[in-house]
Amino acid sequence: MKVDGKHVRTVRFDNGKCIMIEQNKLPFEFSWYVAETYKESCHAIKTMIVRGAGAIGAVGAYAMSQAALEAPESEYLEFLDAAKQEINNSRPTAQNLFYATEAVYQKAKKSRNDAVLEAERLADENAEEGRLIGEFGNQIIEPAMRIETHCNAGWLAFVDYGSALAPIYAAHDAGKGIFVYADETRPRAQGGRLTAWELHNHGVPHQIIPDNAGAYLMAQGKIDMMIVGADRIVANGDVANKIGTLEKAIAAKYYGVPFYVAAPCSTFDLNTASGKDVPIEQRGTEEVMQQSGPDKTGEMHTIMVNHPKSDCINPAFDVTPAELITAIITDKGIVEANKDAIRKLFQ
Amino acid sequence: MKVDGKHVRTVRFDNGKCIMIEQNKLPFEFSWYVAETYKESCHAIKTMIVRGAGAIGAVGAYAMSQAALEAPESEYLEFLDAAKQEINNSRPTAQNLFYATEAVYQKAKKSRNDAVLEAERLADENAEEGRLIGEFGNQIIEPAMRIETHCNAGWLAFVDYGSALAPIYAAHDAGKGIFVYADETRPRAQGGRLTAWELHNHGVPHQIIPDNAGAYLMAQGKIDMMIVGADRIVANGDVANKIGTLEKAIAAKYYGVPFYVAAPCSTFDLNTASGKDVPIEQRGTEEVMQQSGPDKTGEMHTIMVNHPKSDCINPAFDVTPAELITAIITDKGIVEANKDAIRKLFQ
Repeated sequence: MKVDGKHVRTVRFDNGKCIMIEQNKLPFEFSWYVAETYKESCHAIKTMIVRGAGAIGAVGAYAMSQAALEAPESEYLEFLDAAKQEINNSRPTAQNLFYATEAVYQKAKKSRNDAVLEAERLADENAEEGRLIGEFGNQIIEPAMRIETHCNAGWLAFVDYGSALAPIYAAHDAGKGIFVYADETRPRAQGGRLTAWELHNHGVPHQIIPDNAGAYLMAQGKIDMMIVGADRIVANGDVANKIGTLEKAIAAKYYGVPFYVAAPCSTFDLNTASGKDVPIEQRGTEEVMQQSGPDKTGEMHTIMVNHPKSDCINPAFDVTPAELITAIITDKGIVEANKDAIRKLFQ
Repeated sequence: MKVDGKHVRTVRFDNGKCIMIEQNKLPFEFSWYVAETYKESCHAIKTMIVRGAGAIGAVGAYAMSQAALEAPESEYLEFLDAAKQEINNSRPTAQNLFYATEAVYQKAKKSRNDAVLEAERLADENAEEGRLIGEFGNQIIEPAMRIETHCNAGWLAFVDYGSALAPIYAAHDAGKGIFVYADETRPRAQGGRLTAWELHNHGVPHQIIPDNAGAYLMAQGKIDMMIVGADRIVANGDVANKIGTLEKAIAAKYYGVPFYVAAPCSTFDLNTASGKDVPIEQRGTEEVMQQSGPDKTGEMHTIMVNHPKSDCINPAFDVTPAELITAIITDKGIVEANKDAIRKLFQ
């Protein structure tokens, strides 16, 4: 998508270098991190310079092809094996990462060039999935719609386009004159920081809203549609996504606002029957108790924002039951959030 | 209520001095602000050293009695008139303030001593209302209940006890072994800052939760009851309260969690027919875009927490329709949130 009027991807490969947006510095500073070696790409994954399933997968694929380029002729396979392990360990819960490194590893066994081509193919595939989600989603967006979204399911989390934001970009680019309300998404504020940054750079009219103000806007008839991303969609259509998604879905149901989930087919987990079986990650309390950012002079600080002697909870995700979801927008089309429709999608 | 094991009130009067908790410094520092003159009391109201309808009303009453003590014999009434105007102007939207200054002003016309006695009577009355809300509310709290609350409707906002937190304190003091989840309440975080501070000091077991995590806890069956305060309750039982209250009420309804509003009778506005007629204050965007707090060394900073080039909205309140409210806990008893029940309360 666009930054300063130019089309860019979150991650790209150039002559052995893996070049990615430094996401830790967003939205306060836009810069590129250049990983010269596969070890530097691992560092980028580990330190969250890159985040988001699709983007991590692409960096992992490129890292594996870097390893193929770096491997000495004499111990080529040993080097590849060790590198794959090291890349996978850089974010041990990222399913997309393991898939990507394995695919490139298999091609690397044939030749260095095949490894690079496979990594590029995987990155292109990820971008193409986003483009298709955008195309399908755009079909249900009417002119001048006001769309609310939660967290960041934009192109920063993928190679390009994104999931929840892909239909928004497609509708905007088609001149539909839409307006976006971006939930701040405490505690990590991915909406107020990353989604707002994306929308601003692409020129999509938008406002950040405190998470508490969603139902307020719906009550006033100011939300025509919600689109959110997904971390995992299980067999019965239940959706695990960023904490707070559930609350928005309930409010949307109460006010009759259509509630869409957008995700590539790789997000579906048909081996899990219902949302009740999805484990919810509990993250560190410092994300709720503290916040970081620049002061007026640009100097960064980490400050306490809540009562320091109190404890808090910090669940990263919640599960939205299928009954609250209008439909799911995928790269293969739009499906209803139920077992039969989802099973058909994969037949 | 208690701080460091000692019983204190938010505001008290001592030999012509109005002594109040410096709420701007909470929860990071507990200190008292001593207003030696009525002008210093005005300063405290204006700069939000004191906040919350009940507490502001009490400081206004004490300020008016300070004016009576300070007024020169020769131009006693002129001095009182000017002082009343000045006190009222210190927070021009505070209904409780005008009521309090007028009541003390009328007594001041008789004598200085009558003014002081009237101010004390008003403060005692405010504390007693909180105590009664606590007593009535405690009757519906069962042992080991887990109660969620939003924003700060505790004793800091009143002279003592509070509204939403009054039943919680009563149940805790009665040994019911309750647990409280305090919504952070972005953007101003009155829950994470003030409610958490209150509960900690009174020894009530609690955790702060990100606003996004309310429905998550309800879905897991971890919330037995919600109690919130109110800024205004209108004739049909609709309740205007801190932004985000509406979203919690909808989630509570979805999960069958009883949703109570607690407020003194002075919060009812029978001249307004429905919540649709309540104007909603839109506050400055800096409250959403920035946050202030101390770093590890205790130095205070104001930092940007969202994308600086994006715009945002900041509605201070929302309106919860009566149909979502289980009942209203007042100092005169518990009433259903409907026109007839409310009318009866005031007969």
